[in-house]
Amino acid sequence: MSAESLSTTPRTTLHRLRERARTDRADLHAVLEAGLVCHLGVVIDGVPVVLPTGYGRIGDTLYLHGSSANRSLLTAAGQQVCVTVTLLDGLVCARAVFHHSMNYRSAVIFGTARLVTDAAEKLAALRAVTDHLVPGRWAHVREPNRKELAATAVLAVPLDEASVKVRAGAPKDEDEDYDSGIWAGVLPAALTFGAAEPDPALTGEVPVPAHIAALAGRARGTAPIT
Amino acid sequence: MSAESLSTTPRTTLHRLRERARTDRADLHAVLEAGLVCHLGVVIDGVPVVLPTGYGRIGDTLYLHGSSANRSLLTAAGQQVCVTVTLLDGLVCARAVFHHSMNYRSAVIFGTARLVTDAAEKLAALRAVTDHLVPGRWAHVREPNRKELAATAVLAVPLDEASVKVRAGAPKDEDEDYDSGIWAGVLPAALTFGAAEPDPALTGEVPVPAHIAALAGRARGTAPIT
Repeated sequence: MSAESLSTTPRTTLHRLRERARTDRADLHAVLEAGLVCHLGVVIDGVPVVLPTGYGRIGDTLYLHGSSANRSLLTAAGQQVCVTVTLLDGLVCARAVFHHSMNYRSAVIFGTARLVTDAAEKLAALRAVTDHLVPGRWAHVREPNRKELAATAVLAVPLDEASVKVRAGAPKDEDEDYDSGIWAGVLPAALTFGAAEPDPALTGEVPVPAHIAALAGRARGTAPIT
Repeated sequence: MSAESLSTTPRTTLHRLRERARTDRADLHAVLEAGLVCHLGVVIDGVPVVLPTGYGRIGDTLYLHGSSANRSLLTAAGQQVCVTVTLLDGLVCARAVFHHSMNYRSAVIFGTARLVTDAAEKLAALRAVTDHLVPGRWAHVREPNRKELAATAVLAVPLDEASVKVRAGAPKDEDEDYDSGIWAGVLPAALTFGAAEPDPALTGEVPVPAHIAALAGRARGTAPIT
């Protein structure tokens, strides 16, 4: 296995529908780049807890952040966690109920989470999270002060063990259903940004900056992996 | 607490940002109605696993489905699981990095999953899942046969214990940052369907049915809870 491959452990090897599996590290990075929200799974008191949060990536480390009073984040530190990013690309409408599906790209990452305590790493991670959501935002706004940094917890999750799945394209039906006359096809879906809504509290004339205008009115991360 | 309230157990009571909590059962139903994909958290071999899947609701039961060879679904049966539905409504761009946020609606459901074995309940659940994704689809297509039903696993999760969170509106900054001249505002986001893409394998003239046309080109579930 090359360094460019994703690890394949038993839990990241697809047992069914193997044609949906992607094993290139570049595919993992592409899914993470296209997504905005991840779902972090942590075991708390023996029970799974799944929480949505923003994230950013630096090299082969995924960074998540939250309040330093967030119990799930703090519990996750030192524990094995699962982080999943899912992009819904379309509803796949087949002729048979059974063959209905979704077009999607997903990444499921397993790793031991680490609480980031180094000041420089923490700042770099927060920049990665901020600029992942809105590229160019960090350089435009006020950086966190000491009090704000203390109020923020950052988790690092290594991207060593992950599985990436992709479904794209038309529905697949049973041979005998193709002549049924039932409409089949795909309803494509994408997260789309509307026009920027300036804060009513803005004072004076503050034009919409280029890094916001670059996103407004456009779909996010729709380039499919094929 | 009335039957219309969501349960409030320690793990579904918000400890921070309480103004984001919603405690009406109708709010839970609205988030579930607006979402398309949930993230199911299950503990497998002591480790959390988070997987995206479709779902449907009948009354106060959430139904998830998957392949009957899906290890996570089968492992979940009889176990405590967490099911999270997240709708991203916008990127909240503040004047300070620290106050960046997202507008969102989320539901986090805790419950013991039950494998549905009753044939009538299973069929009703699959109809709910199908019609949740594409309302009206079930009546339009071929229903599952015995072999297809056997290949499908359905999990039921009671909606007894859940928390709903909502953030909406403009950013909030520190008093001293309002005069900074930095642009602040919201970049609204919504999952949007494109034009329907007919299956190239369609034979003859099959017009796009009304239940598909009703979704195409529109945003999904954007009505915010306030």
